[in-house]
Amino acid sequence: MADKLDALRSLMSSHSPPLDALVVPSEDYHQSEYVSSRDKRREFVSGFTGSTGLALITRKEALLWTDARYFLQAAQQLSDQWKLMRIGEDPAVDVWMVDNLPYDAAIGTDPWCVSIDTAQRWEPAFAKKQQKLVQTSTNLVDEVWKNRPPLEINPVNVHALEFAGRSATDKLNDLRERLTQEKARGIIITALDEVAWLYNIRGSDVSYCPVVQAFAIVTRTSAFFYVDQRKLSSEVSGYLMENGIEVREYGAVTADVSSLASNQLGPCAFKETQSEVSGGTETGSREDAAESIKTEAEDGGSDDLIWADPGSCCYALYSKLDSNRFLLKQSPLALAKALKNPIELDGLRKAHIRDGAAVVQYLVWLDKQMHENYGASGYFEEGETLAQKKFREGKKLTELTVSDKLESFRASKEHFKSLSFPTISSVGPNAAMNHYRPQPNTCAELDADSIYLFDSGAQYLDGTTDITRTVHFGRPSAHEKACYTAVLKGHIALGNARFPKGTTGYALDILARLPLWKDGLDYRHGTGHGIGSYLNVHEGPHSISYGTRALNVPMQASMTVTDEPGYYEDGNFGIRLENLLVVIEADTKFNFGDKGYLSFEHITWAPYQTKLINLSLLTTEEIDWLNAYHSKCRDILAPYLDDAEMAWLKKATEPVRA
Amino acid sequence: MADKLDALRSLMSSHSPPLDALVVPSEDYHQSEYVSSRDKRREFVSGFTGSTGLALITRKEALLWTDARYFLQAAQQLSDQWKLMRIGEDPAVDVWMVDNLPYDAAIGTDPWCVSIDTAQRWEPAFAKKQQKLVQTSTNLVDEVWKNRPPLEINPVNVHALEFAGRSATDKLNDLRERLTQEKARGIIITALDEVAWLYNIRGSDVSYCPVVQAFAIVTRTSAFFYVDQRKLSSEVSGYLMENGIEVREYGAVTADVSSLASNQLGPCAFKETQSEVSGGTETGSREDAAESIKTEAEDGGSDDLIWADPGSCCYALYSKLDSNRFLLKQSPLALAKALKNPIELDGLRKAHIRDGAAVVQYLVWLDKQMHENYGASGYFEEGETLAQKKFREGKKLTELTVSDKLESFRASKEHFKSLSFPTISSVGPNAAMNHYRPQPNTCAELDADSIYLFDSGAQYLDGTTDITRTVHFGRPSAHEKACYTAVLKGHIALGNARFPKGTTGYALDILARLPLWKDGLDYRHGTGHGIGSYLNVHEGPHSISYGTRALNVPMQASMTVTDEPGYYEDGNFGIRLENLLVVIEADTKFNFGDKGYLSFEHITWAPYQTKLINLSLLTTEEIDWLNAYHSKCRDILAPYLDDAEMAWLKKATEPVRA
Repeated sequence: MADKLDALRSLMSSHSPPLDALVVPSEDYHQSEYVSSRDKRREFVSGFTGSTGLALITRKEALLWTDARYFLQAAQQLSDQWKLMRIGEDPAVDVWMVDNLPYDAAIGTDPWCVSIDTAQRWEPAFAKKQQKLVQTSTNLVDEVWKNRPPLEINPVNVHALEFAGRSATDKLNDLRERLTQEKARGIIITALDEVAWLYNIRGSDVSYCPVVQAFAIVTRTSAFFYVDQRKLSSEVSGYLMENGIEVREYGAVTADVSSLASNQLGPCAFKETQSEVSGGTETGSREDAAESIKTEAEDGGSDDLIWADPGSCCYALYSKLDSNRFLLKQSPLALAKALKNPIELDGLRKAHIRDGAAVVQYLVWLDKQMHENYGASGYFEEGETLAQKKFREGKKLTELTVSDKLESFRASKEHFKSLSFPTISSVGPNAAMNHYRPQPNTCAELDADSIYLFDSGAQYLDGTTDITRTVHFGRPSAHEKACYTAVLKGHIALGNARFPKGTTGYALDILARLPLWKDGLDYRHGTGHGIGSYLNVHEGPHSISYGTRALNVPMQASMTVTDEPGYYEDGNFGIRLENLLVVIEADTKFNFGDKGYLSFEHITWAPYQTKLINLSLLTTEEIDWLNAYHSKCRDILAPYLDDAEMAWLKKATEPVRA
Repeated sequence: MADKLDALRSLMSSHSPPLDALVVPSEDYHQSEYVSSRDKRREFVSGFTGSTGLALITRKEALLWTDARYFLQAAQQLSDQWKLMRIGEDPAVDVWMVDNLPYDAAIGTDPWCVSIDTAQRWEPAFAKKQQKLVQTSTNLVDEVWKNRPPLEINPVNVHALEFAGRSATDKLNDLRERLTQEKARGIIITALDEVAWLYNIRGSDVSYCPVVQAFAIVTRTSAFFYVDQRKLSSEVSGYLMENGIEVREYGAVTADVSSLASNQLGPCAFKETQSEVSGGTETGSREDAAESIKTEAEDGGSDDLIWADPGSCCYALYSKLDSNRFLLKQSPLALAKALKNPIELDGLRKAHIRDGAAVVQYLVWLDKQMHENYGASGYFEEGETLAQKKFREGKKLTELTVSDKLESFRASKEHFKSLSFPTISSVGPNAAMNHYRPQPNTCAELDADSIYLFDSGAQYLDGTTDITRTVHFGRPSAHEKACYTAVLKGHIALGNARFPKGTTGYALDILARLPLWKDGLDYRHGTGHGIGSYLNVHEGPHSISYGTRALNVPMQASMTVTDEPGYYEDGNFGIRLENLLVVIEADTKFNFGDKGYLSFEHITWAPYQTKLINLSLLTTEEIDWLNAYHSKCRDILAPYLDDAEMAWLKKATEPVRA
């Protein structure tokens, strides 16, 4: 680890100008949350494997910022050379740099891995102390990274219309309408899931996310796809051509953004025609080009802006051009993608049923294992664990071995492609780390006397899933039950809410917390995120959270959002319950203010462990909801379960009473 | 009405430059919500009597913007010459002006009646069309206002320490610490309640608000009070002198703000001393002044800012000076005033007990009147009204006559000074106008078959009160009961909330609405406002609301806030329930995140009408809360009630069961 830092510091010194600090963000060239293994530069440098974090290497120090989900994990993974900076408690990274780096400091970063938003926030902060953000021409981490995973040539697939619901041509038409509205000449699409969604293509360049490493540029008349062309079969190339999408090399995006800025970006076919007409002389070409600009300007007025999403577009594509030419605004695809079409919703519902069946099969299997290997009283009974260590070698259950079994149940289902994120399979204290990911050498053994939390999901062709359940195979404490019940009450309260259109996720967030707050409990993460249709497991632009971002986009019908409150007690246990909700029009008795009202439809199907519920803390309404949900679980999952599994599910979903 | 508009348009034409439009805001020179009768310029011009509104007179049109609370009332009160602009539905006033007034338009307004915030929002908007905000040198409305109420010389009173809890000297010390922290040389205090709170003085210049029409300027060493000196007795003058507060004429504030900007503002005594030392030559004085500036700068660094609250400071005091000298930031007195000290809290609790007793006495009296005069089944029974019109002439009850009776019950209580706002006493459809104020000629007669809503409060020396109850003296419909119950459920849910420190009023607002939303019902106003200690009935800086202002200042222990959800059905009825809450430290079982948790203490005591509750819609927890609150009402109000009143209250507060 020290070698890496030494090597980097040496490169920092020999850089022109010499760098006082080097910022290594988690993100790839597309500002992705999950990145390919060769883009895990921050993980390589720091050893911290969490999905969110930022490393800063100065001449003497090495610091890593991450958020509360990862405090425990980062503290465990970082070596002595590293200092953990807790987001929300310690100074923010830009504040720290201004306060601790010298006047005139040169702060280097790869401009492809930093968003426009971030750079625009940092630069004025740095200016206060005459510090400068220096764009390195190469990525210094890549230079010291021996054995960096090679570039993979994974095939691009067409996402069939029977799952996508709308053709790329339709989506392009809508997008071009937005370009006209915003007086934009074109848009640079940088987020990998937006490129995949727009063109109805999928890939496997990033684990868990069926995306293709690619950019797109769409103008009023053309659509470009910047990708390693070795990934395209002739069938896919044909599909793209049919939809008017022109393929260019991944690296060509830089030059094409410049061409777009000078209104020189046109399809190859067009260029060829033009050079024929003009006789191929440079002067002639230019005059023709000028003519074509004029025509376009006359058609569309002063529609000369280039739309870029400042949150996902990298600084490299922006900083060299005239900033006045840019329309910096959230990509219109963010909301378009979040508003699922009826076929996507249908697919998501079906995928979640198959996924729920896999979860039930897993619970049945795990219950049996815990009985047989640990003498546990099991899922239903609250008894002593008889023979905690009486397992046969080779039958030892660990967080990883059981999650492999869970994956195998999912993999047996129709349309399964992969997991949608690394399964969080966590026993006791590990469950208190709310984004814990078990590692082969360090993962814990199952324990019938501890809470077990699993948060997992899969990519199916017809939809992406994400579900969390928390169970106990022995005798839970009264405190554990009280906490589980408070989490469940919040989960139910949010899921049952009805609210007028325009209500924000910020406003709804409190519903999931209130039962916890009553006892002075809380959780340090948001309550809900959107989910893709065979795309990223986390997607915006909406969310349910106390963070002010959740104020930006109100809940709208046909959005998806998770409902996942939790409670985490450091060193003891963690609880989380997560279902996916679909926002639907509510059938309210009245419609005050003619606003229209919304509600949620649960589409996740798996039982809550009634043994962990202190029923005396539930209201009649909550009990009725629970019984109705359980009854529906039985009906919906029945076709996917064998007799033994169904018998187990019937027992797990027996109606409860206060 | 047309005469006024003609006269104003004539002044607009002869103004230099000629005005294309004249803005007439509701506010006085202090941006007050409630203003003195001679400051009701917008009401005089438009005829609309609501507390919030803005009039715009163009050469051809006259428009009035107001918010949803007043849509019905404004529609009734505005003549044909006026167009009602609904805030939230129609374009905002600045948008309208830009869209509808010509290029280069001169838009006049009295800069004393417009805040810095407002002017700074308008000017860039106007600039897009080369429009200009023109500051009129006189108030054009005053020029056409024959019979404008004369200036009143109301005495200033000292607010005794036994009620204020902290001396003016103490408060000044705290304020000066904030000036040091913010590197401010001085602060202009413009909000009337802040001046009154800081100096512990009260007055009667504005109906319902015990404030004095005055400004204050506080520097590191001096404190000034700008007021009509005829209002000061020698006793009050002595009190001010003792606290180091120098009195100056109201109009002197303009010159003194300029002096403050050039660091020439000092106490009279200081000035005199200085001219003695310098021998009185002008040159000598200037040099000495320069010397004194240098010394102050050396002491405090570059502490040369003038603090002004852009929300309450008028544009007139700001626009002529160098804007770089200003620190535009919410006044520190806003929060300091909102955080009640223990003596203020004690006074507020006591005032609310006496006030609750007056409300109960009123209900007892009203119940008897409704029986006797209208043959109503009354507060307790749901029966037919036997003889609706069988009252004796002279015993006719109107919204105003009954509210006079309510005032008389309050006036009989210790420390009563006045009402805290015009009583909202409203029958049936009038109750649907949520800030309805009955007028002598048009107010409705009581009606035993309609809902009756009264929202009222008083100024007592030890505290300000504000309570709303909704009652029915006949047979309420199932729909009315369902709505009342939903409002009550929201009222209870908010009042019972526990939440971590840092929680905003925006987040809490949803708790009061959720039971209404369930049925597609809602209300168009905020849920809670702060209340003064023998000061304004509405005060900030916090609030509970869906408006984004409620994000600015989180709830903090020892704040006061009302809990007043409602439901209003145009043309039919209105329901609102309002108690005052005090934010207190919550005694939670745990303290996750060491944040500290808060809860609310109800300090309003008056029964809810159980006849209006559909008990089957309440949870056990809600019923328990209701019974406990009612039982406490009985205990707390007993000392203030006679036997008959107590018998009535016992019946009204009998425990209920689902």
